Order: sequence, then structure tokens, then C-alpha cells
Amino acid sequence: MMIMKTINFAEKFEKFSDYWTPKVIAEMNDYQFKLAKVKGEFVWHSHAETDETFIVIKGQLNIALRDGEVSLSEGEMYIVPKGVEHKPYAQNECEILLIEPKNIVNTGESGGELTAQNDVWI
Amino acid sequence: MMIMKTINFAEKFEKFSDYWTPKVIAEMNDYQFKLAKVKGEFVWHSHAETDETFIVIKGQLNIALRDGEVSLSEGEMYIVPKGVEHKPYAQNECEILLIEPKNIVNTGESGGELTAQNDVWI
Repeated sequence: MMIMKTINFAEKFEKFSDYWTPKVIAEMNDYQFKLAKVKGEFVWHSHAETDETFIVIKGQLNIALRDGEVSLSEGEMYIVPKGVEHKPYAQNECEILLIEPKNIVNTGESGGELTAQNDVWI
Repeated sequence: MMIMKTINFAEKFEKFSDYWTPKVIAEMNDYQFKLAKVKGEFVWHSHAETDETFIVIKGQLNIALRDGEVSLSEGEMYIVPKGVEHKPYAQNECEILLIEPKNIVNTGESGGELTAQNDVWI
């Protein structure tokens, strides 16, 4: 009998150290699971066509909204509705799991130097 | 400024104690996030139209496949491909997060007494 390979978040996080560059770890139908380390401030952006799920694996993540504020600790999740402008930020290094459709650019339509190459698997 | 409500897995798990009955906690586009407590053996089943994601929040989950075996600990995930027969089981109580499209029945087309009512929110 074959022992199937599972995905261990902690092991995956050991494999990279750069911030704000999501790494694809799995695909479910047309969706991707991505891990990212974040620290500091991201850019304001939105995704016109899709909701975006944030789950905190380790640390503390904040997400600024135009009319509110999200504060996420380990073991918590938040779904940013499609079209809603948001700016993730973290005072200290934080490890997150993102779930969203394939081909989503991390900076949405805002662009800029934090725009990461898509579909980088780890 | 409004402080947005986040979803805390541990808080949600405190709200129910029954096994094998997924509770919807969030929706992303046409997908649902569901929490379940599991213990003992589930039934062999498959989902012809969709992959199914299992993430272990607490404890140890096994998933028997016809040609293999999956063993998941806390902080690990596995995606059962669509159409693949599987039977989850857990020796001790285990807390899991399921991610799959709306309207998926937990027992697939197998039916039986473990078939849970769908779309039960918590």
C-alpha cells in the first residue's frame, strides 16, 4: 500500500524566506493554495472577480479596509469579498495561507514593485 | 473605524460536539469552508465532480484510499482528487477543516446513516 504525500505547512515555510511572494502548494479544481511570509505593509489593491481567503498559520496579520480593520491571529481566517479594497500588513513576520482561484495576481490591478511572479510552486 | 469579525477555528469548535457533521463557517465565491469533528470510521465514498480539501486543525486524521493511505497531523493538508474513493477515519477525536464547492454531500453518492444535512452554519 502506498503512503501518500501530505502537505505540511511548517515544512513548506522552511523552504523560503522572502516576503509577500506567495508560493503555490496545492490545487483544488481551479483554485490554488498558496503560502506566504509577510512583514511590513503591502499595497492597497482589490480583486474584481473573486473573493480571497486569508488564514493565519503563525503570527499576527492585519488587513486594512477602507471602512474597517481586520486583525487575525494564528488559527483565524477572513475572506475579503471580491472588489473590496484591502491592504494587508504585519508588524512582525507572519505566515499565512491564501486560497483563491488560479491566475490571481497578488497586487490585483494596482501593480508596483511588490507584484510577484504567479504560479511559483514550492 | 469598524473592527471586522474574523473566524476563529477554536471558538467555532467549542460550539458543537457531534461527529462527521460538517458545519459551514464561511463561503468564498461558490466554495464553502466547513469544520467537522471526527472520530471512528466514515464510509467509503467519492465526489464525481470535485476535488475535496482536508486540513487538520487538531489531532490525527487518516484517509484510506483504494490504493494508498493518507496520514494527516495538525498543520497538514491533503486534497482528494475528484472521483477518487476515500474513507476518512480517526482513532481519537480530530478537528478538521474541509474546503469544497457548495452543495457537496459528505457521503458523496454512497448515502447511509452518516449522511449529514448540508449547509448547517455555525
